Amino acid sequence: MAGVSTAAPPRRLLLGPGPSNVHPRVRRALAQPMLGHLDPVFLSVLDGVQAGLRRLFGTQNRMTLPLSGTGSAGMEACLVNLLEPGDPVVIGVAGVFGERMCEVARRAGARLTRVDAEPGTILEGDAMAEAIACTRPRLVAFVHAETSTGVAQPVEAIARAARDAGALVVLDCVTSLGGLAVELDAWGIDAAYSATQKCLSCPPGLSPASFSEAAVARVRARRVPVQSWYLDIHLLGGYFGSERVYHHTAPISMILGLAEALAMIEEEGMQARIERHHGAGEALVEGLHGLGFRPLVEARHRLPMLTSLRVPARFAPGEEAGLRRRLLDRYGIEVGGGLGRLAGQIWRIGLMGENARLTSVESLLSALRRELA
Amino acid sequence: MAGVSTAAPPRRLLLGPGPSNVHPRVRRALAQPMLGHLDPVFLSVLDGVQAGLRRLFGTQNRMTLPLSGTGSAGMEACLVNLLEPGDPVVIGVAGVFGERMCEVARRAGARLTRVDAEPGTILEGDAMAEAIACTRPRLVAFVHAETSTGVAQPVEAIARAARDAGALVVLDCVTSLGGLAVELDAWGIDAAYSATQKCLSCPPGLSPASFSEAAVARVRARRVPVQSWYLDIHLLGGYFGSERVYHHTAPISMILGLAEALAMIEEEGMQARIERHHGAGEALVEGLHGLGFRPLVEARHRLPMLTSLRVPARFAPGEEAGLRRRLLDRYGIEVGGGLGRLAGQIWRIGLMGENARLTSVESLLSALRRELA
Repeated sequence: MAGVSTAAPPRRLLLGPGPSNVHPRVRRALAQPMLGHLDPVFLSVLDGVQAGLRRLFGTQNRMTLPLSGTGSAGMEACLVNLLEPGDPVVIGVAGVFGERMCEVARRAGARLTRVDAEPGTILEGDAMAEAIACTRPRLVAFVHAETSTGVAQPVEAIARAARDAGALVVLDCVTSLGGLAVELDAWGIDAAYSATQKCLSCPPGLSPASFSEAAVARVRARRVPVQSWYLDIHLLGGYFGSERVYHHTAPISMILGLAEALAMIEEEGMQARIERHHGAGEALVEGLHGLGFRPLVEARHRLPMLTSLRVPARFAPGEEAGLRRRLLDRYGIEVGGGLGRLAGQIWRIGLMGENARLTSVESLLSALRRELA
Repeated sequence: MAGVSTAAPPRRLLLGPGPSNVHPRVRRALAQPMLGHLDPVFLSVLDGVQAGLRRLFGTQNRMTLPLSGTGSAGMEACLVNLLEPGDPVVIGVAGVFGERMCEVARRAGARLTRVDAEPGTILEGDAMAEAIACTRPRLVAFVHAETSTGVAQPVEAIARAARDAGALVVLDCVTSLGGLAVELDAWGIDAAYSATQKCLSCPPGLSPASFSEAAVARVRARRVPVQSWYLDIHLLGGYFGSERVYHHTAPISMILGLAEALAMIEEEGMQARIERHHGAGEALVEGLHGLGFRPLVEARHRLPMLTSLRVPARFAPGEEAGLRRRLLDRYGIEVGGGLGRLAGQIWRIGLMGENARLTSVESLLSALRRELA
């Protein structure tokens, strides 16, 4: 069966917007012999994963779990559980993933008010607060680390405005979790989701997520059932809660991999990990400055794990795509292009999880210097 | 981080209703270094997976893909894409998974007519045809291999009645695919879904699925958007079609594992694989007869890969659960209990994929003989 063999895939240095490279310890965990999804041994691993995710999210939320889908499934889970048809919702849009939230909320029948930010800038707290005051939403949602622009969104003021107005708050932590501080309880976030293939350095396929007691109560008090059976957190609570009754078959191997990745994060310590991401991101911006790449985002709002850079003006149209392809083909280095309105205009360079190291930065800089010489 | 270590999980012989054991070749594929989801090397593996799934499903459907969720996500994908609010639907219910289809269809706003079969029996073609004639549904859905009872449902007559009435047909192939013949095109099925952890012997986490041109056209002609952004097959077609544009990040490692499992199926040949499942299933029923376990399902409607057996009448209440636990703790053998109405009354023994071998049967029989001596 030609074409399906996976015997010898090439080695890549994955410096795009995710997935990031996976440590051999995590790869070994993925390859462990299979266990049943109700096996007591597996359930104790799952207990540990849920506890580890609580620490990582900075929360005591009982309903903290790895959802059986990618980060986009996590986004959908948060929105379709917490929104009912006709519910007013305010969504902050500072890039493609804020846009995606709007689309998901629309499909849930919500009455959407969106607050836009120019690509590469943050959502203004005042604009969000004004929209919240005007529309009295049941839910406010925005993105912590906008993967399409590389912007780090300040969370606390918006979350406070939302809570003061009686709204629940949903936060997209897809690219931040495991690389930036995430403190759901201290910030007053009611639901958050992430993805395994960014700063956790697991394969893509799971969405760590967390729901506050208020969020769980909102779901319990719904007038109409959650439109998704698969993502209904009330049903998921039967398996991912204390009862451990069957809902769907959990993705065992992926969860074993996540368990190992969480163990590695605890060994390193979150503070050291945050500093490692910060240092790598700074070195990248500095190094690429010398090659004519200028950051899209001003320094104080820049993500350390995902840097967006304007393609040098001297590049001919299409040249940036050819250069990315040469980096991949000649050096095995993947970097990301722009998404949506920024396609062709920026590069997105990820230094996530395992890859947030100076060695990654130097590999890329050296290859780029040679190609641009 | 105690409790999260996955260093040395126990070895299990997984003879429950799934997951089944995963071959070392597939486990090795899972542990391959990570690739980007737009990497040309990964995209060529994905091409091969989609082609392999078409052969396995017996279809030319272009829209054949591994959905990024478990089998239940596949069920939801088929129903929420093809049903709009108010659509009449006929669903055959011969067990828990038919019930689940009803619940998913209800949440999609469909007008549901259900046709029930006693647990352990098939859906009667006449009853289905009558319901179809009376209600003129837009969709008819039923289960090929009902995992909660072990019944193999004859497909063709029901599919014909549905198509004659102008309805699309959805078939649950979760437990059949890779162990029984599945011929979507010959049978006239418009949408089908499966799961990787049954007869494909991959880890749980992906749902192979396929949609006919008529199904894709139905989605294109919808009046309201698909309620799920994550599972919208029109959007998924951007990535899993010829364009390969980003929708969500595909679960790379799981797809590499599936590629290897599909390669192994092609090496064995589907006919040999079907016969292997058949032989193992027969030997199991015969062996357990001697220990007082009687099949729930009459011989001609029995699934080879999942056998449901009445717990011997001499067992005290709760004794069957204790015996299953001893099989797991002492011998590392997992077998399944009853689900839903059949809890406590039956065992469900899976001989799926890698495990459909006489050695599995003999291991179980020998352990049971010792425990029951």
